[in-house]
Amino acid sequence: MSTTDRELRVGMVGYAFMGAAHSQAWRTVNRVYDLPARVRMAAICGRDPEKVADAADRLGWESHTTDWRELIARDDIDIVDVCTPGDSHAEITLAALAAGKHVLCEKPLANTVAEAREMTAAATTAQAAGIRSMCGFNYRRVPAVTMMQQLIAAGRLGKIRHVRAVYLQDWIVDPQFPLVWRLQKDKAGSGALGDIGAHIIDLTQFVTGQRIAGVSALTETFVKQRPLPGGSSGLAATGPADGATAATGEVTVDDAAVFVARLDGGALATYEASRFATGRKNGLRVEVNGSLGTVVFDLERLNELEFYDATLPAAEQGFTRILVTEGDHPYMSAWWPPGHIIGYEHSFTHQMRDLVEAVATGVDPAPSFADALQVQLVLDAVTRSAELGSSWTEVEPSLAAVAG
Amino acid sequence: MSTTDRELRVGMVGYAFMGAAHSQAWRTVNRVYDLPARVRMAAICGRDPEKVADAADRLGWESHTTDWRELIARDDIDIVDVCTPGDSHAEITLAALAAGKHVLCEKPLANTVAEAREMTAAATTAQAAGIRSMCGFNYRRVPAVTMMQQLIAAGRLGKIRHVRAVYLQDWIVDPQFPLVWRLQKDKAGSGALGDIGAHIIDLTQFVTGQRIAGVSALTETFVKQRPLPGGSSGLAATGPADGATAATGEVTVDDAAVFVARLDGGALATYEASRFATGRKNGLRVEVNGSLGTVVFDLERLNELEFYDATLPAAEQGFTRILVTEGDHPYMSAWWPPGHIIGYEHSFTHQMRDLVEAVATGVDPAPSFADALQVQLVLDAVTRSAELGSSWTEVEPSLAAVAG
Amino acid sequence: MSTTDRELRVGMVGYAFMGAAHSQAWRTVNRVYDLPARVRMAAICGRDPEKVADAADRLGWESHTTDWRELIARDDIDIVDVCTPGDSHAEITLAALAAGKHVLCEKPLANTVAEAREMTAAATTAQAAGIRSMCGFNYRRVPAVTMMQQLIAAGRLGKIRHVRAVYLQDWIVDPQFPLVWRLQKDKAGSGALGDIGAHIIDLTQFVTGQRIAGVSALTETFVKQRPLPGGSSGLAATGPADGATAATGEVTVDDAAVFVARLDGGALATYEASRFATGRKNGLRVEVNGSLGTVVFDLERLNELEFYDATLPAAEQGFTRILVTEGDHPYMSAWWPPGHIIGYEHSFTHQMRDLVEAVATGVDPAPSFADALQVQLVLDAVTRSAELGSSWTEVEPSLAAVAG
Amino acid sequence: MSTTDRELRVGMVGYAFMGAAHSQAWRTVNRVYDLPARVRMAAICGRDPEKVADAADRLGWESHTTDWRELIARDDIDIVDVCTPGDSHAEITLAALAAGKHVLCEKPLANTVAEAREMTAAATTAQAAGIRSMCGFNYRRVPAVTMMQQLIAAGRLGKIRHVRAVYLQDWIVDPQFPLVWRLQKDKAGSGALGDIGAHIIDLTQFVTGQRIAGVSALTETFVKQRPLPGGSSGLAATGPADGATAATGEVTVDDAAVFVARLDGGALATYEASRFATGRKNGLRVEVNGSLGTVVFDLERLNELEFYDATLPAAEQGFTRILVTEGDHPYMSAWWPPGHIIGYEHSFTHQMRDLVEAVATGVDPAPSFADALQVQLVLDAVTRSAELGSSWTEVEPSLAAVAG
Repeated sequence: MSTTDRELRVGMVGYAFMGAAHSQAWRTVNRVYDLPARVRMAAICGRDPEKVADAADRLGWESHTTDWRELIARDDIDIVDVCTPGDSHAEITLAALAAGKHVLCEKPLANTVAEAREMTAAATTAQAAGIRSMCGFNYRRVPAVTMMQQLIAAGRLGKIRHVRAVYLQDWIVDPQFPLVWRLQKDKAGSGALGDIGAHIIDLTQFVTGQRIAGVSALTETFVKQRPLPGGSSGLAATGPADGATAATGEVTVDDAAVFVARLDGGALATYEASRFATGRKNGLRVEVNGSLGTVVFDLERLNELEFYDATLPAAEQGFTRILVTEGDHPYMSAWWPPGHIIGYEHSFTHQMRDLVEAVATGVDPAPSFADALQVQLVLDAVTRSAELGSSWTEVEPSLAAVAG
Repeated sequence: MSTTDRELRVGMVGYAFMGAAHSQAWRTVNRVYDLPARVRMAAICGRDPEKVADAADRLGWESHTTDWRELIARDDIDIVDVCTPGDSHAEITLAALAAGKHVLCEKPLANTVAEAREMTAAATTAQAAGIRSMCGFNYRRVPAVTMMQQLIAAGRLGKIRHVRAVYLQDWIVDPQFPLVWRLQKDKAGSGALGDIGAHIIDLTQFVTGQRIAGVSALTETFVKQRPLPGGSSGLAATGPADGATAATGEVTVDDAAVFVARLDGGALATYEASRFATGRKNGLRVEVNGSLGTVVFDLERLNELEFYDATLPAAEQGFTRILVTEGDHPYMSAWWPPGHIIGYEHSFTHQMRDLVEAVATGVDPAPSFADALQVQLVLDAVTRSAELGSSWTEVEPSLAAVAG
Repeated sequence: MSTTDRELRVGMVGYAFMGAAHSQAWRTVNRVYDLPARVRMAAICGRDPEKVADAADRLGWESHTTDWRELIARDDIDIVDVCTPGDSHAEITLAALAAGKHVLCEKPLANTVAEAREMTAAATTAQAAGIRSMCGFNYRRVPAVTMMQQLIAAGRLGKIRHVRAVYLQDWIVDPQFPLVWRLQKDKAGSGALGDIGAHIIDLTQFVTGQRIAGVSALTETFVKQRPLPGGSSGLAATGPADGATAATGEVTVDDAAVFVARLDGGALATYEASRFATGRKNGLRVEVNGSLGTVVFDLERLNELEFYDATLPAAEQGFTRILVTEGDHPYMSAWWPPGHIIGYEHSFTHQMRDLVEAVATGVDPAPSFADALQVQLVLDAVTRSAELGSSWTEVEPSLAAVAG
Repeated sequence: MSTTDRELRVGMVGYAFMGAAHSQAWRTVNRVYDLPARVRMAAICGRDPEKVADAADRLGWESHTTDWRELIARDDIDIVDVCTPGDSHAEITLAALAAGKHVLCEKPLANTVAEAREMTAAATTAQAAGIRSMCGFNYRRVPAVTMMQQLIAAGRLGKIRHVRAVYLQDWIVDPQFPLVWRLQKDKAGSGALGDIGAHIIDLTQFVTGQRIAGVSALTETFVKQRPLPGGSSGLAATGPADGATAATGEVTVDDAAVFVARLDGGALATYEASRFATGRKNGLRVEVNGSLGTVVFDLERLNELEFYDATLPAAEQGFTRILVTEGDHPYMSAWWPPGHIIGYEHSFTHQMRDLVEAVATGVDPAPSFADALQVQLVLDAVTRSAELGSSWTEVEPSLAAVAG
C-alpha cells in the first residue's frame, strides 16, 4: 500500500466476467505497486438486486445499487469503471464524463462508430477539465506485449514487413450452445469481430505504432439458429447453458471474421477472429516480422515472448523464448522471483496501476478513446468490406484527423 | 530392391536444387521400398556442358546431355522428370508427352494458366494411351501431411470451418541479395506466390478435399531494385551471391502475397506466402479446424503432426504431438524404428515410390496435371485480385468443369 | 464471499517473499471460492518494527507485532501461518499448537529430522483436540499437479516405472551474488536440497502415492566463498544485493544435489535440485512413466499438463498438451474462461481454500506434518548418502511406522 | 562425386537395422560431399545365405558372402564395417585389423572391458602401420551435437556445472514383446545401458571434453520373463514379433539404468537409459549447464539446438531454438536450403564422410577405439555399482592412462 493518504474511489457498472476480473485487479493493485493514491472499491452496480448484492459481498465492494445513474451522481466516486455489454457503453460513459468522473470503459468502446465518435469527442472535452478516459484494451499491459512494443519502438525489428494476428476460441463450436447475449447484434454489436478481433486490432496497432489503412474481409455465421438460453440473464456465462430449451433464435452476429490489410507504414497483414477454432481456447497469437527481427506472442503462454534477432551471428540466430518474469521486464519488478509466472488477471492489475497513476498525477492514460475509436473504424471497415463481397475498403479517418 | 526385373528408365532435365533432391530420391527409392519396377537413372540434361557432366557424376546419372530434345528422343527413357525453372515446363512436358514418355513435372505446373491448360489437355490425351503424368507437389507425401488428409477424409475433423496456411521464408530480406532468376517474372512466373504459395494452395486443397472458390488478395514487392548477380547462372543458388555487383535490376515478382478465401465446402481461409518473414526458414504451417477436431502441421518439424480430438473427454482434450514415425504411419513402415526421424528429401522418395508404382501397375498418379491446373487457377485469381486492388475474385473453373 | 458469518482469523509470522505470496492468497480465497468460513487477516508478525508495519499496510493485515509469542497468545487468532526461515519453524509451530491454534507451516517443515519428528508428534496430539496442521507444499495445488495425481490414482498410467524430477534455478550462478540467509546452514538448514529439492520430493511422492525407499546422492557447493550482504536483513531478497561488500563468508549449504532412488512401489527415479542451472528460472519439471502412459509437468508452464495415453490407437498416440483451464479441471471452475491462465500465486490460493474448508468442516488437511516428516527423512537420507561418498542409504521409517 | 579416381572399397558385416542405415550412408556420402576418395560398396556379409543375397540386392552391395573371414581375406577390401551384435565385434575387428583393413566398428565397442582393451591395443598397433579405426558413435555427427561441442570448446558455456542426459525408449513396455537378442546378455552384453546408455555416455564426454570419474547406479529388469520369439533370427526386428509363442525365457539384461556421476572437471551429472519410458520413442535428451550458458539437444528434433547465452542483456536472455540447417552449421553446407531438415540417417552419412576423409588423407578419425574403451569403462563402473547396491564406483583408468 502506498504511503499516500490520497484515495481514488471507484464505482463499477457490471458484475459478470469482466466485473470479476476488474474487481480482482482493483483489490490487488495497491498490494503490489507503490502508487500515489489508494483505491477504494466504493460501489458496484448491476440490474439484478440480489445478484449485485451478492457480487458486492463476494468481490469486495463497499456498496451496491441497481441504478447506474445513482452511482454516477454520487459525490464520493472518482472513477467509473464500465464493464457492461457494449450497447450501454456510450450512455453510461457519456453520463459519467458529464458528471466529471474519470472513466475506464471496457472494449470495444461502443457498438457503432457514431457512438464511438461521440464518446471520443466527450472525452476530449472532459480532458480540458482534467477528466481522464481510458479504454480497457488490457492486453497492452501483458508484460510480454509491452516488451514487444518497446522492442519495436527501439528499432530492434527494423522496418516492419508483416503482421499476422489471430484470436481463436472454440466455445460455440457446438450448435447446441445457446443464444447468449454475445451472439445478439443488438446487445453485442458484433460477434467474434468486435469481441476478440478488436483486441488484435488494437494490439497490433499498439505494438507496431502503425494504423490499419484498408482491408478486404470475409465474415461468416456458421451456425445460424441456436437454442434460446433457459435462464433470463442477459449476461450469460461463457459456457454452454444447462437449461437450453427447444425454442431457437437467430444468431445475428458473425462467428468468424478474416481479413487482409495494409498498415500505413507499408506492411502486409492478416487477421482472423473466430469462435469456431476447435481446440483454441484463448488463442491470441501475434507475429510481427521486420527487416531486423521478429517477435511472436501467444496469450495462452502469456509469460513468454519469442524474439528473433537477425543481427546476431547467422549460426546463432533463432527464436529466443524469453520468460518475461525478470525484474527488468515491464511491470514485473513488483511481482515474484524470476520464472514464477503471473496469470491473465494481472493484465487488468497493470491497467489499473497505470490508470491510478495517470489520474493521480494528472496525465492522460492510454489507450485513449481516440485510440479505441481507431479500432472501431477498423471494425467498421471490416464489416463494410464483408457486406460488399470482400471488396477493398479503406479505414475512415478518425475525428482527430478530420479536425486536423 | 524389388525382385522384379522390370526397369523404368528416368531422364531428368535440370540439375540445380530440385535436380539434386530428385536424384537423391531416385537413388533411394528401390533401396527402401519393394516396388514392381527398378529405377535406372539413365540420363540427366542441363544447359552447361561442364556442369551437367559434373552433375551426372556427382548425382549418379548414367549419361548426360545439354539437349533436352535429344533426351526425349531416346528410346531407352521411360519417364521424363522436369526440374527446370517454370518458363520451360510447358515446352519440355508437351514434347515428352508427345514422345510417349511418362512425365513428372515440378510445381508450379507452368507460368501461365494458358500453358497449364494446354499441358492438362495433353496429359488427358496421353492418358488414353497409357501415358502417366504427375505434378511434383512433393509435400503431399510428407507422412504427417498424408496422415492429415486421411484423418480429414475419415471424418475425424467433422465439418471443416477454417484453414490457415502460411509458407514463410526469409532468404531475400537483405536488400543486397542479388536478382536471381527466381526474382524475375519472365523466368519464374511469379515470386513467393508461385514458388511457395503454390505449395500451400495444393496442400490445403489436398488435405481438405475442397477447392478454393474465390479470393481477395494483396501482393507486395518490398525491395524493388536489387544488385545483378555476379555469375552468369540462370539457376543461381538460394543463398546470397558473393559476386554481387554494383549494377542493379528490377525485381519483377512479388516478395509476398496474402489472401483470404472461401473453400467450396464453406470454410473460411487465410493464406500467406512470403520471403520476408525474418527467422522463418522453411516455415510452411497449416492448421485446419473442423467441428470435431483440429490438425496442425509445420514443415520445419515435418515428422510431427498435432491433432486435437474434440470427441475425447473434455478434461483430457489437448493438442497431441504425434511423432509420425511409427510403422502404422503412411510411408513409414519401410524406414527406421519409431522416433528416428526422416528428412525433407524423403517427401521426394515417397513421391517417386508412388509414381513408380503407378506407372508399373498402369494407374494414374496424383496430383494430376488437372490438380496442378487447379492450383494455377488459384494463383491466377490471386494475381488478378491483387491487380484489381484486392477485389473479390472467383477462381475460374478448370477445363474439366468447362467440359462438363 | 461465502454466505456464512463464520470467521477464521489468521495470524501470519514472516513478511518476506512467502509472506507476500500467502497474503495475496488469503486476500483472494473468499473472493473466488464459496467457503464455509471467511478469512480475516488479523495480524502479521516480523522482527523489524518498521518493516512489519509497512508490510501490514501494504499486504492488508489488520494489526502487526514484532513478537510472535504475543500473536500466538491472542484469543482472536484461529490459524497461525508460519512463513519464517526454517530455523524457527519448530519453535513457533510447537508454541502455536500448544496454544490450540491451527497451523499452516511453510516447507520444509523443519531444519532437522528431530525437530520434524517433534512437530509431527505435537500435531498428532493436537489433532485429538480438533487442532489442524498442514505443511505448505503449495505445488500440490497447482491444478495440473492435482490432475496428475488424479490420473495416476485412477490407474491411467498403469504400473509406475520411472520418475524423473528436477527443480532447477540459476539465481546464484554469479560468484558475486552475496551470502544471503538461504546460503547459511544455521538459518536455512540446507541449500538447494531443502529449499527446492523438498518440493520435488513431496510432489513426486504425492502424485505417485509411493515413498522414496532409498537413495544414492551427490551434493556440491560450487562457489564456496561469497561476499557478505551489505544490508543487515536476515530475510534478504532473492536478487543480487546492491550493497555487496569486499568481505566474504563461507557458503555452508549445498548449491546442488543429485540422487538416484527407488520408490517403494518398484520404480526407478532420478532427482536433481540446483541453483546453478543457467537459464532455468523456476524449472521444476516432473515426468512419470507408467506401463500405460506418461505425464509431464513443467512449473514454468504451470497451466499445462502433458499426457501420453498408450491405450489410444498406436498411430494417434502422442503427448497431449492439456491446457488445465477448463471448468472440469481441479480448482478451475471458479476462475476465468478456458484458456485464460492463472499464475504461480494461486497454488497458495488453492492451498488456503482447502485449509479453510478443512478447518471449518473439522477434517485434517493434507499434506500433514507426517507427510512433511517423510520429506524430511528423504532429505536426511540424501544428506547422509552424500556425506558417505554417495553410498546407498535407506530412508528411515517415520514415527508412525515406528509406532506401528 | 569427387574428381578423384581413388577408391575405397568397403566390406560390411551385418545387414539388419544398422546394416541398412550404414548402407544408406555409404550410398549417399559421395553424392553430397566432395571427398578425396570414392566409396565402392564391395561386399556384404551375413549368416543367412538367402537373406544376405537379398540384402546385397536391396541395399546395393556388389557381392555377398556368409563368411566374414572370407570378406576380410579379400585383397580388394579397404574398410571393414562391423555392424553385428556386440558379441562378435572383438573377433571380427581383431581379424580385420590383423589383415590390414581399416575398421569402422559399431558401438558399443565390445561386450566386455577385456575385449575393448584388446581391441584398443590392436588398434594402436595397427595405427603405426597406417591402419585407421573408428567406433560408430554416430550421434557425434548430428550437426546440432557437433555445434554443441564447438560452443563448449569455444568457452561459450564457461565452467561446466551440470550434465543431465537421458536416452528413453518404450519398445519393450509390453510384457508380451518377445525375447529378442537385444534382451539376452550373451549376445547383447547389456540392455538399455549398453545399447542406448552408451550413446549418452559418449555424447556427453564428447561435448564437454570431460570424462566421467565415478558413478552410483541402479539398474532394473522390470519384466523378467518374456515369450520366446517365433522366428529363428538372431537379428530380430525391433518391433514385436508376430509369432510370439507360449514358451518364455529369462530376460538377462537390464531394462533400465540410472546413475549419478561426477565429471573429472567438477560437474555433477545424472544419466538414465530406459526402454520403459512410455511415449518416448528415441528420446535422447542432453542438457549441459555452464557458468555462462546452457545447451539442450533432443534427438527427436535433431535439427534443432537450444542455446541460452547468459552474456546477453538480462531482459533478452532465453532459450534460443537454433534451426541447425544453415550453411554455416557443421556438415550442412552440402545439404538443402535453410530450414529443410535432414533425418536420423545422415548422422551416418557424416560419419562416413569423416572416415573416408581420414583414411584418404592418412589421419586418425574420432571417436577412436580408446574413446570407445572409455565408454566401456563407464558402462563397467555402472554395472559394478549396481551390483554392489548402488555404491560409489570409480571408473577404471584406460590402458593409455595405465601405460602413462
